[in-house]
Amino acid sequence: MTDTLAAVRPIEKRLAAARDAAVRLATVTTAQKDAALEAIALALVERADEILPANELDLANGRENGLSSGLQDRLRLDRARLDQLAAAVREVIALPDPVGEVVRGSALPNGLRIAQTRVPFGVVGAIYEARPNVTIDIAALALKSGNAVVLRGGSAAENTNRVLVELLADALERTGLPGDAVQTVDPFGRDGARRLMTARGFVDVLIPRGSAELIRTVVEESTVPVIETGAGVVHLVLDESADEAMAIEVAVNSKVQRPSVCNALETLLVDARAAERLLPPVLSALREAGVTIHADERARAIFPDAVPVTPEDWGTEHMSLDLSVGVVDDLDSAIGHIRRYSTKHTEAIVTNDLARAERFLAEVDAAVVMVNASTRFTDGGQFGFGAEVGISTQKLHARGPMGLPELTSTKWVVRGTGQIRG
Amino acid sequence: MTDTLAAVRPIEKRLAAARDAAVRLATVTTAQKDAALEAIALALVERADEILPANELDLANGRENGLSSGLQDRLRLDRARLDQLAAAVREVIALPDPVGEVVRGSALPNGLRIAQTRVPFGVVGAIYEARPNVTIDIAALALKSGNAVVLRGGSAAENTNRVLVELLADALERTGLPGDAVQTVDPFGRDGARRLMTARGFVDVLIPRGSAELIRTVVEESTVPVIETGAGVVHLVLDESADEAMAIEVAVNSKVQRPSVCNALETLLVDARAAERLLPPVLSALREAGVTIHADERARAIFPDAVPVTPEDWGTEHMSLDLSVGVVDDLDSAIGHIRRYSTKHTEAIVTNDLARAERFLAEVDAAVVMVNASTRFTDGGQFGFGAEVGISTQKLHARGPMGLPELTSTKWVVRGTGQIRG
Repeated sequence: MTDTLAAVRPIEKRLAAARDAAVRLATVTTAQKDAALEAIALALVERADEILPANELDLANGRENGLSSGLQDRLRLDRARLDQLAAAVREVIALPDPVGEVVRGSALPNGLRIAQTRVPFGVVGAIYEARPNVTIDIAALALKSGNAVVLRGGSAAENTNRVLVELLADALERTGLPGDAVQTVDPFGRDGARRLMTARGFVDVLIPRGSAELIRTVVEESTVPVIETGAGVVHLVLDESADEAMAIEVAVNSKVQRPSVCNALETLLVDARAAERLLPPVLSALREAGVTIHADERARAIFPDAVPVTPEDWGTEHMSLDLSVGVVDDLDSAIGHIRRYSTKHTEAIVTNDLARAERFLAEVDAAVVMVNASTRFTDGGQFGFGAEVGISTQKLHARGPMGLPELTSTKWVVRGTGQIRG
Repeated sequence: MTDTLAAVRPIEKRLAAARDAAVRLATVTTAQKDAALEAIALALVERADEILPANELDLANGRENGLSSGLQDRLRLDRARLDQLAAAVREVIALPDPVGEVVRGSALPNGLRIAQTRVPFGVVGAIYEARPNVTIDIAALALKSGNAVVLRGGSAAENTNRVLVELLADALERTGLPGDAVQTVDPFGRDGARRLMTARGFVDVLIPRGSAELIRTVVEESTVPVIETGAGVVHLVLDESADEAMAIEVAVNSKVQRPSVCNALETLLVDARAAERLLPPVLSALREAGVTIHADERARAIFPDAVPVTPEDWGTEHMSLDLSVGVVDDLDSAIGHIRRYSTKHTEAIVTNDLARAERFLAEVDAAVVMVNASTRFTDGGQFGFGAEVGISTQKLHARGPMGLPELTSTKWVVRGTGQIRG
């Protein structure tokens, strides 16, 4: 019956309802938004008996349709994961509300007072795949920052997401906020995604989360503004002056601590003058940690126990315990290599040479550039933002880890006493 | 000969050259950039004998091709206008350089120091029509903020722009900066514009300036991020409590001071309870200033000497001495009308009622919202930004008047002493 009802409400109505709800949400107090979020956190645990059977259905369909075991794992919810989701919602409650913050302001010579003030975007669209936790994460972050959301969670999680969207709308209604602030276009399949990408005047910003393929499609087909959260082909340069112990620790931590995420190391570049000194201990430590070394000829001459690196490897985000390793002539060569293959996510150097450290920080173009630190620190939580919306690899609006303020726009509030322009 | 040379260098090479030049520009000092800008200002005056004949050729072609007299005026350069352009470049020299500004930063508990630092976008693309002054304006603003530019100035100004681009490149070279930092795709016609809109990896942000049609095309066809500088259907609400003298002054100034620009008033809405008191003096003053009143029935019942307003008028940016006038029941009706027809540029109210002033500022969604001030104040110069890149009507990255900082992105600079993630 829910399906029938869902199909009855056309997509235009859903987009318009989200836009109308956004007007209400823009002016509600932080206390009201936090109360709604608490209701959501409670419902995630209390309504497990509705959520888990729907999730079972999606999992059964996934097995039938040959969904990979990795995607099946992302899709799966259980009571422990629902508890985690509720805890994540409560972390969002604990964050400061960005709405109303005055970013800058002044009194003009004619007495006009101007204040650039944070306001919600309005309607945030999200397109993602087979991850019901994103439904809750994005909705919680968007609501806290005063935004309505329109979700496209993909067919693989359709049943789970339908229950979660109902839960979200119900929690909003019960706490006096508009349930229409959470909409889904899932019943419309691919057409729903397409409409979301072209919903100018209804969707203020669209955030794709998922595979490189998904993100590319959204970037290319959208006429609404997109925040691109991209892949990380992350490099670490070991300078001639690098301390050996630090080089080992930073390389191993960057690669191994969680290899499947975007801030994990993919390519290690070593200055030729330090290659004989550093490559054996660093690569041995990496191999002991389970890493498969894909090395160029110069590196293999020093550390023979490695697979030859291919030209494709340099541009690949392995997301596994595979590492590309190369020897470079100098810092210029290293920066040149990074310019060619970087996805502009995170780039790091281990060095004790001040001039080269500063050159690296100034000349490498990436969301995050680091000296003497693990690349795994590119993270909203580590940066002290609390929950993270994603890591932007574009240069417009937000770059690097995004927190709640990145889900807002600003407006200029001008207060006068009858001023006119001469 | 220049034409032949220009055509010889393919578009890919131009985009790549701009990208390479951007790497250099990102790290040059403010003094170096200011020296190049001074060389540009000097050359605009010294090379008038090259610029003006090229401009004459464009004007002759324009007359032959039936270019409107308005566009011919925008296209025309003379010695006085070249002096003004040089003065505008010197205003950019006087602005603070945004590059290197630390937007925020902190020391993390583990000792890592993080600093979000302003950096140039890299390559700024600009698509505009028949306005050679934009060639100089955009190039100067982009260079001051450390960006390379790729320009598409349109066929109507092709000869003028070719000379201006040569002048810009020459001034850069003579002061030791890469001349490749200024590129044009004009020799490639419409295909050049299309390539610019899809030059992902080469162009970091694209700014369209010109007609609504041009801007819509760029927004719809671009796969590179766009900053939309849009039209202004600007409203002024006269509240029940509005002071009569202030209502007259603000309405007349908003409409008449410069009617052809985006922050000029297009629609006046009057609260029904104040209509009899305010409409006669306000509309009389407007008419005396040469304004044609297009009024709804309720307004014409009070002020009969007006043209009937059409449904299309409410959504029209006249850019002329025409004004749409309507009577609304209350503030809710006024805000409802604005929500329906606003282009989210500038919206204003004249009121002495504190609660309604605050409601207007909070509930109206626009780049600039005003109480008791002329809408003509939405302007980078008036806001104290110095030169203005444009007025953004989108919500991503920049909203409202854009200054030099809006031509920058940020990167996170992380400095450690070997920290790894536990």
